[in-house]
Amino acid sequence: MTVHPVVMAGGSGTRFWPLSRKARPKQFLALATDRPLIVETVNRLRGLATPARTWVVCGPVHARAVRRLLPRLPAANVIVEPIARNTAPAIGLATLQVQARDPDGVLAILPSDHHVADVPAFQAVLRRAAEVAQSGALVTIGIKPTRPETGYGYIECGAPVEASAGVAVRRVKRFTEKPNRELAEAFVAARTYAWNGGIFLWTARTLTNAIKEHCPAMAPLLERIADAYGTPEFDCVFAELYPQCENISIDYAVLEPRSVKGEMGSEIYCLPADFGWNDLGCWSALHEHVADCGPEELARKNVFDKSDQPCINIDSRGNYVYAPGKAVALVGVNDLVVVETGDALLITTRERSQDVGKVVAELKQAGREDLV
Amino acid sequence: MTVHPVVMAGGSGTRFWPLSRKARPKQFLALATDRPLIVETVNRLRGLATPARTWVVCGPVHARAVRRLLPRLPAANVIVEPIARNTAPAIGLATLQVQARDPDGVLAILPSDHHVADVPAFQAVLRRAAEVAQSGALVTIGIKPTRPETGYGYIECGAPVEASAGVAVRRVKRFTEKPNRELAEAFVAARTYAWNGGIFLWTARTLTNAIKEHCPAMAPLLERIADAYGTPEFDCVFAELYPQCENISIDYAVLEPRSVKGEMGSEIYCLPADFGWNDLGCWSALHEHVADCGPEELARKNVFDKSDQPCINIDSRGNYVYAPGKAVALVGVNDLVVVETGDALLITTRERSQDVGKVVAELKQAGREDLV
Repeated sequence: MTVHPVVMAGGSGTRFWPLSRKARPKQFLALATDRPLIVETVNRLRGLATPARTWVVCGPVHARAVRRLLPRLPAANVIVEPIARNTAPAIGLATLQVQARDPDGVLAILPSDHHVADVPAFQAVLRRAAEVAQSGALVTIGIKPTRPETGYGYIECGAPVEASAGVAVRRVKRFTEKPNRELAEAFVAARTYAWNGGIFLWTARTLTNAIKEHCPAMAPLLERIADAYGTPEFDCVFAELYPQCENISIDYAVLEPRSVKGEMGSEIYCLPADFGWNDLGCWSALHEHVADCGPEELARKNVFDKSDQPCINIDSRGNYVYAPGKAVALVGVNDLVVVETGDALLITTRERSQDVGKVVAELKQAGREDLV
Repeated sequence: MTVHPVVMAGGSGTRFWPLSRKARPKQFLALATDRPLIVETVNRLRGLATPARTWVVCGPVHARAVRRLLPRLPAANVIVEPIARNTAPAIGLATLQVQARDPDGVLAILPSDHHVADVPAFQAVLRRAAEVAQSGALVTIGIKPTRPETGYGYIECGAPVEASAGVAVRRVKRFTEKPNRELAEAFVAARTYAWNGGIFLWTARTLTNAIKEHCPAMAPLLERIADAYGTPEFDCVFAELYPQCENISIDYAVLEPRSVKGEMGSEIYCLPADFGWNDLGCWSALHEHVADCGPEELARKNVFDKSDQPCINIDSRGNYVYAPGKAVALVGVNDLVVVETGDALLITTRERSQDVGKVVAELKQAGREDLV
């Protein structure tokens, strides 16, 4: 069995402003460790897949950074979308590339900007998922929910179909994107729901057929682009046809339609897993990761992330400060998120840090593209 | 009548850290306007006294800065204390210098780091105070209290002795340094108390005699230093004798003993005044000055002091931010004081900003003199 990881690096997240910028989105930042998240994502695959079989999808602004950070990947494995079209076209295109070489190879679709604490557990789940995928199924990895998060997608799982090597395989009953608080609480209480972490496995053949079935307009466009790959016309064909593809996520394009059918017995499976996943969705998620403690201790102490200068704390607690190279003093403040970069300063709270995207929107509106 | 202003610039205040530092204390910062406070202090005297008759007392670290900022002052008018000895020795020494040239000249002792909004009113009060001082009295300027501040000294005034040109002259009954909250409230309610703004006027002869009377140990030391002034031995004599002077404020050394006697009819007067005084005692005092509005509006809006970059406000109010040259974003935070300099970042609240001195103390304890 051959695994072909496809690392999705097209994101241009704004929630880590001012550290993240258009030219340097989250996946290129060394947030969780001292290496960029995308580098950790590829390193995490060691032993599971070779760099020669690993693909990265990204935007034109980031192609150079990807090649510089991942020098062992063949340059041709970096698929540079001429324009962002969400995940379905990008995954579809990567699938057709693999299909041409290894139609029964298993693709592993992976976000480039999440953190995984327990790499052996992650690899064990992925191996099992790849085996299930090889039988022709669509496979998702379900993250064990730890709180009623309303910002994630949830996967409702049926009874285990089988379990081996400590990994259960469950049939997917339904996908629910971003539930309200009440629903999220019910999902967590029910214990049959998992978070959708954006990790999917399937063979090239399975997904090619699924795209033909569910995206009849997109499939021929992607085929013509894939056919041109490696020819002098490629750039031209790619630039012309790719923007015509529907701007849609793989979840909406393929997984949800299949899961509806699935209730009657289809072929989407979920492998619920618990490998210390953190999507680092905003500064307060990073705060929790860096603090590496329970919520009570988190509220008592301060985190001075990547600090190499004195940090003075007077009657302050629960704060997260990212201001490398600066002396920092907190006097009588609690539960703040403070981020300082060369040209910008953000002050928010743990509760409001997910609203940082609004700052980026306002800066854009003010014509300050240089700051976003 | 000749007025000899003596600008007290020996302070090494820490409450504007991280902007203020050992080498650049508050009086050298352009806090209230775009000119350093000490420059504004001297400019405020135009028409009242000439630079040739204006004296500045400062420490050795600051002599160069004083001469650079006040180039019209004769270099000899900058009295450089070899070591800080509080205000009594410094004022005593300046008094002896003036005594040698103009024994009936009036000295006007002035803090170097306060703000005055209404300069004509300030000058009118000072002129009247100088007239009263010329008769041989010790004269203080009383600032009209606007709140029960516990950090200031209070002057209890008796009935007006006389009033002319809209300026009342009252006999001083008592000085009370930093009362508790209850007492401060009673003082403000009584309407017979004024804040001690550290502005004093007297003739050289009057104060020379007062120092001889109240500081019998200090007087001969100061006389020997003054005698050496302008001779080759001066530096040596100054360095040897000045540290032997008692480390005491002019308030404790002369004014309070005199005021006790004064209840029986002595010669300390207070001219209560209201000229838009602000001692800029901490960041939140500067916040109020810059906001230039009532407390309710202050709590509603944000002040981005000296900002030339975008400042984004999302659901935030009552904040003061000093971060020139940086884009700043506030998301869901209230009543904070945020100060950013090249090497340091302070986050505190309006209520706690007077505790910033504790940060400086901790940095010193940590051996980081480079940051204080």
